[in-house]
Amino acid sequence: MERVKCIIAYDGTNFSGYQVQPNKRTVQSEIEGALKKMHKGYEVKIVASGRTDAKVHALGQVIHFDSTFTISPDRWKQALNALFPDDIQVKSVEIADSGFHARYDVSAKEYRYKLLTSHEGNVFERNYSYHYPYPLDLDAMRKAADYLVGTHDFSSFCASRTGVKDKVRTITHIQIEKQTDELIFSFLGNGFLYNMVRILVGTLLDVGRGAIPPFEVKNILASRDRTLAGKTAPGQGLYLWKVFYGD
Amino acid sequence: MERVKCIIAYDGTNFSGYQVQPNKRTVQSEIEGALKKMHKGYEVKIVASGRTDAKVHALGQVIHFDSTFTISPDRWKQALNALFPDDIQVKSVEIADSGFHARYDVSAKEYRYKLLTSHEGNVFERNYSYHYPYPLDLDAMRKAADYLVGTHDFSSFCASRTGVKDKVRTITHIQIEKQTDELIFSFLGNGFLYNMVRILVGTLLDVGRGAIPPFEVKNILASRDRTLAGKTAPGQGLYLWKVFYGD
Repeated sequence: MERVKCIIAYDGTNFSGYQVQPNKRTVQSEIEGALKKMHKGYEVKIVASGRTDAKVHALGQVIHFDSTFTISPDRWKQALNALFPDDIQVKSVEIADSGFHARYDVSAKEYRYKLLTSHEGNVFERNYSYHYPYPLDLDAMRKAADYLVGTHDFSSFCASRTGVKDKVRTITHIQIEKQTDELIFSFLGNGFLYNMVRILVGTLLDVGRGAIPPFEVKNILASRDRTLAGKTAPGQGLYLWKVFYGD
Repeated sequence: MERVKCIIAYDGTNFSGYQVQPNKRTVQSEIEGALKKMHKGYEVKIVASGRTDAKVHALGQVIHFDSTFTISPDRWKQALNALFPDDIQVKSVEIADSGFHARYDVSAKEYRYKLLTSHEGNVFERNYSYHYPYPLDLDAMRKAADYLVGTHDFSSFCASRTGVKDKVRTITHIQIEKQTDELIFSFLGNGFLYNMVRILVGTLLDVGRGAIPPFEVKNILASRDRTLAGKTAPGQGLYLWKVFYGD
């Protein structure tokens, strides 16, 4: 048996998220279906660094699986890309240490969120960004982001339907970068709760439009009350950008 | 009755082209469906500057239709964008002269064609460009393009299934612009035959990879023989960019 580690990208538009669900097209079911075909009917389970929701994209999702095949990484990549649907793509393959685990071994993750800020929407961006054509105070948003960086209990920024008990996470970096018609948020942290990045974005947008003063974000954190934070920003603007392992 | 002129954009990915076809989702049927709803069941026929094929996109398609409603252009735009599906968008509306005709009055059209030239494909570009990861001799392609500019019989660059008899058209400008991972072709002309831009691109790619010497394009034009030109480049790389009226 060899443990195969893959970095994959996918366009989340036509998926009901990452995880297998009955009668839904998901990233996991498409990949497991392809692996089953390759392994002549034998089921191969995959493990990902974490789930992504419906519409959410990935540039650097990481998965692992075990196979009886002995194939070079380049041939694996070719074979998988030939079997995968055209909205899932293998970026790289590596034969990993047998102890490697795509979820347990994650040391950090980077997510990005893309806002389209032009007055008019754009049909070509509708599945790849969140159209938000309102004035935003970037300084206020960056001040608010500073309160979020660090180790905190992020209960206020977590969807209520979650089984996770420990809601303490560390965000090491938040960047908000303005481009011509876009605003790109980057979040780097050791882990993110369910919907956390999208709720962080929703809250920062409330700060940007003046509905919440920047320092109030400190109180929202302390409250551990989801209802005080902003809305969950829509899934199509979110990208799982990179997953880090080791130091 | 007022004649309404609209500039529209659409993402061609989920359309079987522009023109109405039984049991297919087309741009025309979606727009006429929305107009029928708006006009309380009364059928409103639209006329476009020309058709586009399955998968082909538009940034500046122009349509006209007649309506008994008296509405300002801004309100028209709002109403139509509220009724149209999210892959069709009205960019601007104008109340036109009653004699204006979106097809007959066209003086020129600009098409663009987008090639993704990076070694690896990109899931996010799969519906919006043609992945062509092979070396291309740009100088040779530009020389070949020079032979195509001007007034010619373009029979060699026209899909055989066409009813059009007169195949003389004037191309006023061809530009091939290299960007980091992209090659953008622009074609400006007084009119284009069925599949003409895609066959021009296919032929220029044959020149770029050295299969056809640039001067041979002159002979292909003169032959009026479709089989001598290159393949029809795929639809998803093509954009109807702009339609010109008047001088």
